[in-house]
Amino acid sequence: MDTKPIGVFDSGLGGLTVVKELKKILPHENIIYFGDTGRVPYGTRGRDTVVKYACQDINFLLSQNVKMIIAACGTVSASLPQSVISCLSLPFTGVLLPAAQAACVTSLNGKIGVIGTATTIKSGAYGKAMRSIRNDAVITGNACPLFVPLIENGYIQPDNQIIRLIAENYLKIFKGSDIDTLILGCTHFPIIRPVIADILGDAVSLIDPGEETARVAAALLTKEHKLNMTKEPGSCHFYVSDSTESFAENGGLFLGESITDQVERISIENYPTQLEQ
Amino acid sequence: MDTKPIGVFDSGLGGLTVVKELKKILPHENIIYFGDTGRVPYGTRGRDTVVKYACQDINFLLSQNVKMIIAACGTVSASLPQSVISCLSLPFTGVLLPAAQAACVTSLNGKIGVIGTATTIKSGAYGKAMRSIRNDAVITGNACPLFVPLIENGYIQPDNQIIRLIAENYLKIFKGSDIDTLILGCTHFPIIRPVIADILGDAVSLIDPGEETARVAAALLTKEHKLNMTKEPGSCHFYVSDSTESFAENGGLFLGESITDQVERISIENYPTQLEQ
Repeated sequence: MDTKPIGVFDSGLGGLTVVKELKKILPHENIIYFGDTGRVPYGTRGRDTVVKYACQDINFLLSQNVKMIIAACGTVSASLPQSVISCLSLPFTGVLLPAAQAACVTSLNGKIGVIGTATTIKSGAYGKAMRSIRNDAVITGNACPLFVPLIENGYIQPDNQIIRLIAENYLKIFKGSDIDTLILGCTHFPIIRPVIADILGDAVSLIDPGEETARVAAALLTKEHKLNMTKEPGSCHFYVSDSTESFAENGGLFLGESITDQVERISIENYPTQLEQ
Repeated sequence: MDTKPIGVFDSGLGGLTVVKELKKILPHENIIYFGDTGRVPYGTRGRDTVVKYACQDINFLLSQNVKMIIAACGTVSASLPQSVISCLSLPFTGVLLPAAQAACVTSLNGKIGVIGTATTIKSGAYGKAMRSIRNDAVITGNACPLFVPLIENGYIQPDNQIIRLIAENYLKIFKGSDIDTLILGCTHFPIIRPVIADILGDAVSLIDPGEETARVAAALLTKEHKLNMTKEPGSCHFYVSDSTESFAENGGLFLGESITDQVERISIENYPTQLEQ
């Protein structure tokens, strides 16, 4: 067994939807979360900028002596090249592969949709992953760049006219495409799952990357004999690169409970922009 | 006379609305623009983060041997303390004071509205500036956090249902407040001036910080005998902290013309986070 914490990072608050799922299925694990709130969002930036920021985030988590790293950010998961991931000598998962695997198993007709940030959709990484798992997969992707700011500004209720109008606009591409499965390819999006479900109807299964990633993390830790076997509830420690108050205030929506654990601020730009081989 | 360039910076693209006005009234000036596209937006971040980023931006411009610095960002202008500005030994202006002065002169009844980012409105800096100029001023402020992402995603036409709905929601506070003047306190907002004008009607004068700041810059350079008296058209050189292609593609909307000048990428995090005394 291994009582060291699991390291989780995201551009900001969205990755807390992954922490929420981790806490459900691995309640005894300690978690260290880094949210890069001083440089959020990642999903509008160029791929090389995203990779540079992600390497700094990973280097921070490595400095905290974590036993595993989870990139709880759809944009990072779609952008990190294998050459970077290969530098890591500890278990790692993004949210992309767990979600892609779940979608390939869930879909009956092989027609799968993906929504995400502009950078995620531009990367084509979800489609590539799914076609390698299931060669009959037909992927339709659409960038939904306004979902993140709308969610962060509280436009989340299914009866809110604005989120509804924008969601209908973004999702209309899927109406004629006969998909039976849609990946919510950004960790913010599960917050508006009811809006999306309502528009697409019961015939489309929605894949939440947080749920799938938590399951993959549990399997990886089990395989490597690194689960924390103590009976105590795990602790969470949060780090951010901007205001701690704002994170504590707004994070609860994503975590599904109030943030009562300690939040600390760090200077992420002091960490190296590349991983050591 | 002084042929050195004017240095202009913003969190991203919005400051180009100031460059557009500068080019109109000072067509012979050379301009160096820095857009911190790798860390945009500033308007959702804590004040200390904004000040840290702004000091790096200023240190970059100082390294380019500029003769004047313009903070073409409402959030920076509302956040920079006088102690930081006092460190500068060259002419400086933000967009706040020029806009505040223009609003105080324009308003007949002293009832003035301000819209801006969350950080700008939270700072109360516009109100403070206007009350020191005109002690009968009654200020009503409202944060419009979704305007920046909506504008950057092209929701700008007066007949667009979504920008219209959100603008009506943000501006309804002014309908009962009897204001006769409204400051567009973020350099993105002039792009949707027609939407705002349509909702508020002719009885409310709109103050564009870009126009006012360009006038103040011209006056400052004249006073200091630093105008560029050459007959040649001035050049523009753009620097960014993320993709140069994306800046060149999207900047035209803000500049009012295509970006054909050179765009270069720099690592802004390498510049000091404080100004030298």
